[in-house]
Amino acid sequence: MHILRFFFLLPLFTFVHSAFAQNKEKPLNFIVIFADDLGYGDLSSFGHPTIQTPNLDQMVVQGQKWTQFYVGASVCTPSRAALLTGRLPVRSGMSSDKYRVLFPNSQNGLPNSEITLAEQLKKANYRTACIGKWHLGHQKKHLPLQNGFDYYFGIPYSNDMDTPQSVYKEKGGYLELINNPDNIQIENFQVPLIQNNTVIERPANQNTITRRYSEETIQFIKNNKSEPFFIYLAHSLPHVPLFASKEALGKSARGLYGDVVEEIDQGIGAIINALKEEGLDKNTLVVFTSDNGPWTLFKTQGGSAGPLYAGKGTTWEGGMRVPTVFWAPERIAPGIITQMGSTMDLFHTFSKIAGIPLPDDRILDSHDLSPLLFEKEKTSREHLFYYRGAQLYAVRYGAYKAHFITQGEYGQFGGKEEHNPPLLYNLNHDPSEQFDIAEAHPEILKKIEAIVSEHKNKMVPGPDQLKDRG
Amino acid sequence: MHILRFFFLLPLFTFVHSAFAQNKEKPLNFIVIFADDLGYGDLSSFGHPTIQTPNLDQMVVQGQKWTQFYVGASVCTPSRAALLTGRLPVRSGMSSDKYRVLFPNSQNGLPNSEITLAEQLKKANYRTACIGKWHLGHQKKHLPLQNGFDYYFGIPYSNDMDTPQSVYKEKGGYLELINNPDNIQIENFQVPLIQNNTVIERPANQNTITRRYSEETIQFIKNNKSEPFFIYLAHSLPHVPLFASKEALGKSARGLYGDVVEEIDQGIGAIINALKEEGLDKNTLVVFTSDNGPWTLFKTQGGSAGPLYAGKGTTWEGGMRVPTVFWAPERIAPGIITQMGSTMDLFHTFSKIAGIPLPDDRILDSHDLSPLLFEKEKTSREHLFYYRGAQLYAVRYGAYKAHFITQGEYGQFGGKEEHNPPLLYNLNHDPSEQFDIAEAHPEILKKIEAIVSEHKNKMVPGPDQLKDRG
Repeated sequence: MHILRFFFLLPLFTFVHSAFAQNKEKPLNFIVIFADDLGYGDLSSFGHPTIQTPNLDQMVVQGQKWTQFYVGASVCTPSRAALLTGRLPVRSGMSSDKYRVLFPNSQNGLPNSEITLAEQLKKANYRTACIGKWHLGHQKKHLPLQNGFDYYFGIPYSNDMDTPQSVYKEKGGYLELINNPDNIQIENFQVPLIQNNTVIERPANQNTITRRYSEETIQFIKNNKSEPFFIYLAHSLPHVPLFASKEALGKSARGLYGDVVEEIDQGIGAIINALKEEGLDKNTLVVFTSDNGPWTLFKTQGGSAGPLYAGKGTTWEGGMRVPTVFWAPERIAPGIITQMGSTMDLFHTFSKIAGIPLPDDRILDSHDLSPLLFEKEKTSREHLFYYRGAQLYAVRYGAYKAHFITQGEYGQFGGKEEHNPPLLYNLNHDPSEQFDIAEAHPEILKKIEAIVSEHKNKMVPGPDQLKDRG
Repeated sequence: MHILRFFFLLPLFTFVHSAFAQNKEKPLNFIVIFADDLGYGDLSSFGHPTIQTPNLDQMVVQGQKWTQFYVGASVCTPSRAALLTGRLPVRSGMSSDKYRVLFPNSQNGLPNSEITLAEQLKKANYRTACIGKWHLGHQKKHLPLQNGFDYYFGIPYSNDMDTPQSVYKEKGGYLELINNPDNIQIENFQVPLIQNNTVIERPANQNTITRRYSEETIQFIKNNKSEPFFIYLAHSLPHVPLFASKEALGKSARGLYGDVVEEIDQGIGAIINALKEEGLDKNTLVVFTSDNGPWTLFKTQGGSAGPLYAGKGTTWEGGMRVPTVFWAPERIAPGIITQMGSTMDLFHTFSKIAGIPLPDDRILDSHDLSPLLFEKEKTSREHLFYYRGAQLYAVRYGAYKAHFITQGEYGQFGGKEEHNPPLLYNLNHDPSEQFDIAEAHPEILKKIEAIVSEHKNKMVPGPDQLKDRG
């Protein structure tokens, strides 16, 4: 009888203790959900007419919708390096003029001298997990466990890689392979699924991968709920080739691309529910964003940048501005945020929230967003540098953006062109970058030139980590 | 003492009575809020990055966001005729190949044989008001009071009309006049402000006009709260030239266009508050939409169609699909609606809700949306006809849209072009109309051709009411 009573009391005691802990003792948990090639216009709350993302939409209402939030580069590898280091990828050598990203035969990865967000949060004893696509080096020394993460479950590079030469030849090349839905079989993409440092499945079953990433995230939350945690959930979709589970397939009015996005959204709903069940929803900051704009080359298999021009690979807004939500009920002040932010700012922001000093031996490109998250005050971010490879293409200063170089992709959105004077747009008035106002604003150009000059003087590019392929 | 007690009891009695009345006795009130030239992408909840429309955004959350809602024509006069008659404007002769809209020297207006939504609702003793821009004939016989409305306060045509010839000559024509903000003085647009049948101000003070429309709406609600009412609030902005009140000017990050849209949104907030104060918020259906897409010719003074192609004047989606919200808390089921709807459907829908039989002596193009509003069931609307002037340019059937003719405006978006076979788009998969799939879907084209053939066989265009100008 005494034993029974003890068991009845236990859940109550646990509840009271954890409620106290979450407000006073335990630092905020962090979950970063990173979609792959999801465009600015691909959530219903960001204006898509037929993709339904009710869970993210609710986070938008309860949290902060950031409408001018950017990535550090408009393709996978450098964008991920930027988020995890809080630095422009050119500094770490993860942004190259030779290759856009790492490939299965690449020789290198993120240098060990870089401090990842996981390594940074480890200083405050966070439990850390990387779930999903890594793409910062597939050799063991570069994998997440060697970069500050306690747990890893995911694929080491993009889901369209590792295609056997025979398949390429048979299908007539990459574009022919991906553009024909009949070719989209898992076997054509021999991407390994890795747990910690071990390959556990090859090819990864991509039909179930989105759901498994969400489940792994929930499991990690449950296993680590008594400690502060940082989960970097980097979905490998909706990057082409598109895959969805049986349950999600054919459900979206938007077709397969919509099925994939809606399955990610459902997973987010399940994660939020798990946080609630564990009493962690008032003690966790969830950030949703994307690694770059839509891959427009793939037509309806690619996403939409909504009102923004162009997509992935370019330094137009469609390439680098991404749909972003910050969610932490009763912690951050709800609203629509039109100030600039960057995935690189998460490094400084999380460090500030967790009370961890920033490294002082290197230049960071990271600004503390916490004044805006918690007090709706201005942040220190006043400009933004748009690199393509290792070259500076454009700069944003306040509402203004100057393009020194523009370049489309694969014959779309124009060839490489230098602009002197630069093209100048007021992005607050003209988000689609249609109306060049350089002539009317020499004073802005002068200011931007000074910013660029200072930036270039201090820039020391790291040795190119993408150039060597076997 | 007895008298005092009576006074204390009175508010309680009134409350109980009105709470009962609003659920059982009084039919639903209707308020249609019609913006002018507001684009599909111009509300924050429809994806605009820097225009803030918190009141409409809240209605989106509490009500239904319709993402595939259309106007009957992509310019002012025929679009308004379509909404108020529930008929394609070509039937009433309000859509013409000679002139796009009515002008201050036009000889005609909406034929008296047409039944307006106000006349229809009068059959169930609704009190009716038209507040804002009319544009269906400025001669007395065509004004709102002669078309079923009990009250009128507004301008009879567009806010850019009635420009003295001397001003045109001095400024170098219309485009030069409107495109230079320095020219935008109220005196350059001698538009009259009319109350009932009387001109009360000329030129109308357009700086304060948006706020006055909202105030007039609230006043009409207060004056008519004991009876069912229908208010058609047709804002004359954000049509160029743009004007905002001192209070709104300079407030929006989007610039003047944003100031104007945000002032409309604030007025909507005030109207919703007034409904709450009067205990009418559970008994009123508010519909917000726009008369056509953005006037892209005017650059940042015009709006944005978001992900949709082209704008006002065209039969591309950007011209005819408009941001739409249905709001009636505890009455209509909240959600995002991707089924088709049209402003023409309000005629049938309101008639159904108010229990008024439809006229049986004419063809209507109006479908009952109430199954979708109240039960989330399918409506009978399966197609949609896109007219430009009196000519059929395109047809939507389910997810598919076939363009027989395409034509841009003022050198934008291409000249007039006939397509045989037609261009075919799947709008659910491809809202930006980028990927022609005609070749892959002959069966859809065949079905659409049958629909067009049946439609044309039954179409009897009314005599052109726009062609005569003095």
